[in-house]
Order: sequence, then C-alpha cells, then structure tokens
Amino acid sequence: MANSSSSKIQQSPTVPKGFRFAGVTCGIKASGKPDLAIVVGDKPLIAAGVYTTNQIVAAPVVLCRSRTPSSQTRAVVINSGNANACTGEQGERDAKEMSQMVATRLGCAASDVLVMSTGIIGRPLPMAKIESGIDDAISKLQPDHDAFTRASTAIMTTDAFRKSIQRTVTIEGQTYCVAAMAKGAGMIAPNMATMLAVVVTDAPLDENDVVDALRFVANRSFNRVSVDGHMSTNDSLVLLSSGATEGPTLKGERLNAYREFLCETCIELAKMLVDDGEGATHIMEIRVSGAQSDSDANEIARVIGESLLVKTAITGGDPNWGRIVSAAGYAGRPMQPELTNLKILGVPLYENGTPLAFDAKTVSQLIRDSTTVVMELCVGDGNGNATRWASDITSEYVRFNSEYTT
Amino acid sequence: MANSSSSKIQQSPTVPKGFRFAGVTCGIKASGKPDLAIVVGDKPLIAAGVYTTNQIVAAPVVLCRSRTPSSQTRAVVINSGNANACTGEQGERDAKEMSQMVATRLGCAASDVLVMSTGIIGRPLPMAKIESGIDDAISKLQPDHDAFTRASTAIMTTDAFRKSIQRTVTIEGQTYCVAAMAKGAGMIAPNMATMLAVVVTDAPLDENDVVDALRFVANRSFNRVSVDGHMSTNDSLVLLSSGATEGPTLKGERLNAYREFLCETCIELAKMLVDDGEGATHIMEIRVSGAQSDSDANEIARVIGESLLVKTAITGGDPNWGRIVSAAGYAGRPMQPELTNLKILGVPLYENGTPLAFDAKTVSQLIRDSTTVVMELCVGDGNGNATRWASDITSEYVRFNSEYTT
Repeated sequence: MANSSSSKIQQSPTVPKGFRFAGVTCGIKASGKPDLAIVVGDKPLIAAGVYTTNQIVAAPVVLCRSRTPSSQTRAVVINSGNANACTGEQGERDAKEMSQMVATRLGCAASDVLVMSTGIIGRPLPMAKIESGIDDAISKLQPDHDAFTRASTAIMTTDAFRKSIQRTVTIEGQTYCVAAMAKGAGMIAPNMATMLAVVVTDAPLDENDVVDALRFVANRSFNRVSVDGHMSTNDSLVLLSSGATEGPTLKGERLNAYREFLCETCIELAKMLVDDGEGATHIMEIRVSGAQSDSDANEIARVIGESLLVKTAITGGDPNWGRIVSAAGYAGRPMQPELTNLKILGVPLYENGTPLAFDAKTVSQLIRDSTTVVMELCVGDGNGNATRWASDITSEYVRFNSEYTT
Repeated sequence: MANSSSSKIQQSPTVPKGFRFAGVTCGIKASGKPDLAIVVGDKPLIAAGVYTTNQIVAAPVVLCRSRTPSSQTRAVVINSGNANACTGEQGERDAKEMSQMVATRLGCAASDVLVMSTGIIGRPLPMAKIESGIDDAISKLQPDHDAFTRASTAIMTTDAFRKSIQRTVTIEGQTYCVAAMAKGAGMIAPNMATMLAVVVTDAPLDENDVVDALRFVANRSFNRVSVDGHMSTNDSLVLLSSGATEGPTLKGERLNAYREFLCETCIELAKMLVDDGEGATHIMEIRVSGAQSDSDANEIARVIGESLLVKTAITGGDPNWGRIVSAAGYAGRPMQPELTNLKILGVPLYENGTPLAFDAKTVSQLIRDSTTVVMELCVGDGNGNATRWASDITSEYVRFNSEYTT
C-alpha cells in the first residue's frame, strides 16, 4: 500500500493544481438547492471514464462514453435535479447542447466537454435554466477548496451529507494532490439512484496510465460498494489529470505507489456512499478469502452484502452466521463447505463447516456498538480474496422508498 | 393448457389413492404446535426430487439426493422446528436414523424413506422426540383429506397460513388426483427460510416421466417465485406417484395434458408462498416477453422481482416504470431499449424506450386496489418469455427479520 517508506498520504485542504471549480443554483431543483457544477482545466486534461453497464443508458452517459478517454478534455459540467434519462432523441440533443454551452464560453470544442446528470428521469432538461447556470458557474470558477466544496455540494440529490475528499501523497520527495467528489448510490433520488464521481489530480500521467489507473481503482472502490444493488442508468466515474505538478511523468514503482494512493482515497470516498445508504445503521465490511479467484471472492462478497437476510440481521445486531454462510452458498461460485470459517468483528462463529459456541449477547452488543461490522469469511483453501462494503437495511429505507409516488 | 376439450381441472376434497398421511406434535417446537408429518404409500411409490443448489446443504437434502429418483420409495418423513443443517456428521447420522425409524415401523428399507427438515439451524435434532413423533404418526396414518391437512399443518414453521392444494383432472374420461403441500419461502424461520413441498398423485406414470414432469413443473412454478431471493440449505421438492388410478400409464398427449395440470396446480401452490411473504401487501406477477430466450426472460423477470426499488415502489402504489425498466437493464441479458415496452395492470407506461403520459393517480390507485400487480415488460422482438411471481416488501419485513436475535 501507499503507506510504505517511500510515500505518505495526508489529508489536505488544498486542491490539485491546474483546475478551477464552481457550484451554483440555477433552479433545476424545486428546492432551490445548488444544482449545477463545473470542473475546468486550465489546460487540456487527460480524462478517463467508467460508466454504468445498465443497458438502459442516459443521454449524458452515451455522450461521455464517446468522449473518453481523451487528452483534450477541458471541462466536466454536472447538473443535479434531472437525470436526462429515458428522454429519447431530445435528451441526446440536450446533452450535446449542454456541452456546447460550456465549450463556447471556454473557447474549446464541444467534444472536449463531458456532461453528467442526476435526478428525476423521463423529463426533458430545462435548458434555459441550465444555460443561465453555466453562465453563472463560469463566472465563479475558482482554483480553491471552497469552490471545490461548492461544486461537490451542487451534485448532491437527496444525499444526507456531501461526499468529497482531498488528499496529498508524497512519493520520493514529490507531492501530488487528489480531490474527489461523489454523490448518491443509495436509492436516493425518488425515481432513481445514481452514483456520480469526479476525481481530479495534478499528477503527471500518461493517457494510458490514467485509463489503467481508473479501471484498477474503480474495481476496488466504487465497484465494491452496494446499498441495494440497483444499478442506475446514469452511473459515471471520471478521472481527470492536469499533470500540473512538476517533475517527470509517473512510471514504474512511483506510478504503482500513486495508484495505490488513488485507490485508498477512492475507497474512503466510496465508503461514504455506503454510510449514506438511506436509513442505514451499519457499514458491513465483507472480507472473503480462500476462494478460487479474486473474482469468485468478489461475487460471494457481493451476494452476502446484497442479501436482505444478512442486512436485516446486522441491523438487528444478530450474529447470524447461518444467513451469511448460506448466502455465500448460493452465490454460484465454488466454495468448500468443510473448510468454511466465519468471524464477525474478530469473533469466530463458524469453523470448518460447523457452528461454534459463542456468547451471542456479547457479539450482538459488539455489532450494535460498531459502525463498521467486519465479517471475515474464508470459503476454502484458494488464493482468491476480495473486500466489499454494503449498508444494512432498516424500516426507514423501505418507508422512504415506498412512500414516494410518481 | 390443461383446460382443453379433453381435460378438466377441478378443486377436490379427495386425496390421491394409494397414500396415507399423518401430522402430529412431538415437542420439537417449543410452541407446542404440530411438528412431524409422514406421507406413506400403500405400495412402493415412484419418487423424484429437486433440491437446493446452495453449496451449503443440510443433511436431509444430502440423503434425499442419494435416494431419488426411485421406484421403491415408501414414505417421506418431515419435521419442522429444526432444520438439521450445519450439524456435521452427527446431522448425517441423525437424518439416516430418522429414515430408519420409519423404515423399521413400515417394514421397508431405510433407503426407501425420504427425510425433510425445516427450522432452526446448527442444532442437533432431538432424536428421542422425533422417535416418539414417528410412533405417534404411524399409528394415526389415514388416507383422507383431514389427515392430509394435518400433515400440511405439521410442516409449517412461521407460515401465516397453511399451504396445500387438492385437485383432480379428467383426461379422456379418466380422473386423476393431485394433492400438494408446501411451507415457507418467505424469510420465515428466524434463522433460515426453507421451501419444502411434497406433491402426491395417483396417476400411473413411468419413473422417467415422473422425473421429467417434476423438472418441467419445478422450473415453471416453485423456481419462479421469490420473496427475498435467499436460497436455503434445505429447499426440497418431491413428487410421489402411487399409480393407484386404473388405466394405462400416461403417455403422449395424455401425459402432456396431465403435466400441464400438474404445472397449473403447482403454480397455484407456489403463489401461496409469495402471498405469505412476510409483511407482503402485493404479489407482483412479472411477465417478460420479447427476450432472446426463455432463460433470458426468466432472468430479467427475476432481477425485477428481487429489486428492492421495484418492491418498495409497488408497496407504495407507485407506477414507477423507471425502477422496473432500469432493473431489467442491469439483469445482464440482452434487451433492445428502443423496443422496450411496459404495462402495469394493463396501462401502458413506457413505449419503445420512451415514457408515456399517463394519469399517475389512477394507476397508483389501481395498484393499491390490486392484490396481484401484473407487469408486462417487452424487452425486444425476440421469442423468449417467462412469468414469475414475487412479493413486495414492507417495513414489517425488515422489522421481523431484524428483531430476531440468535
């Protein structure tokens, strides 16, 4: 990991060099809360993106897919309050037009502007409001923490708290900065959950390495969290590199150390999404080992984290090894029941296929007292392992998601 | 379907010929409710079974797998209150011993007796109680409706109502009878959900046809329902044929008609499982068409039926096409977004990839007023289709499953 002798991670009030940020209110949301953000590079940025694998895809995702990776990206414009999803050809025109509005004002090509949207689906974007929002945001761009915070706030929908993180790492005497913002992932918007995230860095990186690093990081952070397993039509994650920090392009060991740093940072951000799962009372950290492959371990952990029975057990402070082990058993990946072991918060509950005697009251209290409930499940003698994070579920979740009416 | 000119289905107070039934109380359940059932054939029965695909498998399932199919089966003994799961070698010995107890009293081989268990997991079976229960049940075996009902009652765990069905069908002048009982499927037992079902018939069938018919029926009935998607370690479905009805062995068109009748009967029984989903207020009937294959349609329907967002929308009477269409989109099976159409309770909400204008209040009221909410989703121009049934979810479900503590 990045905390090796040659690198050091720090929380940071600074933002990466080479970027300006703005977050404004333009009236897309009836609530009057901020709803438009722009992230701009002083110079062309290297950009990579990963997007929803849902077959129903919102217009801005179609646009971004065609525009990344790129080494000419100048800006990302993000609106909340309207997802521009299931909006047909009008939606595609609007997403393009939104990028053109930014491009015109920055003096770049529309194809160098990325677009993200989140909010209600099936309704056309209010383009006049968006245009005035873009004007306003462009006039307020600033290269500092406060502007970054305003941008992070403007991408929220019903998130209970803003999700952003700023960190620096020093690798062989050179300091690099990452700032990242995210929204969503819980069944947050009334119609649709969406996970949006923008990660910006000033580390000098080659385009290929930006693409590789994003895939590496996404598979270990944002792709490892679930609130309810519903994948939206708008999920998007973009990594932008300004390369504004001095020094040579990161390669070899230095690149690896940087990538680990980026990964740790994004895991912290991704865990905020789980922590904000509607009505959630615990984060489940599910560590699966002993699987035939990392992919098998990841799938087993996913099935456990999405099991309603496991979620409700944790909500109730129930060290219910049966629900956890049986969820693993139906994940469809090889496991060795006679070599299966489970610990919750360090307490062994199940060993080599047999339940152990344990003090249920003590473990129950341990669960109730813990914000993060670590489950360590070993499913055999293989080398595959994976860690995922998922929220538990409460009556609040069901109430919230059933009381809304279109 | 079986309601063709040549066959007629009827509800029936009779039970299939060639069987006797008993349901007794032997003290496995602390509640003092009935907890042991036996189904016995007057002569050797043809038996086929389908079992959980969970890799963590309870001892009685291991036993039944090795003993079916068979044309020598004499009895099924079922206890509730204890699942004999995760009980190691002791559990295997106990399951065998349970079958031996019945075999000794019936004068057959232990290998001709099937065993099912449901209830709490990780605890050894109380064998003395089970033996006295078997004695009691054997002494009370009767070939009638009341005895069948007592047996159906004794396999319940926390089911809100007994699930059994008795039907006859007349095919080309000959009348055949089916009686079937089931328990579970909701997160019913505190530790574990289990679906157990026993289907008995007096139709004369070849062993191969019993095996084929069970697979055909299981894939269209019990395998098409979900409450929360958790598959237990004990799920078992057994079909027993006494062949006690006169006339030639069913073949060709008559066999097909009989199989459809069996299927319709089992679908009715399977829907009772959904109807009893804990705290459920609606049954969702999810009809997917236009997929590339029946298997694709089935998987898309499964994902929709297990989506928390879809479930909570239906609970709340929300005609939320976005949640349904986007759940289909992440099922991982091919769909054609531009040819996707959705109706809820006959009302078109989404056509060729675009939301339609509709009166949300009216459709919401329709949903609230319906016990069964039919969703018709067409995902393209393929020939694949499938229908599944799933329960919605309420705060009650979460409360029930989180308030229990081991």
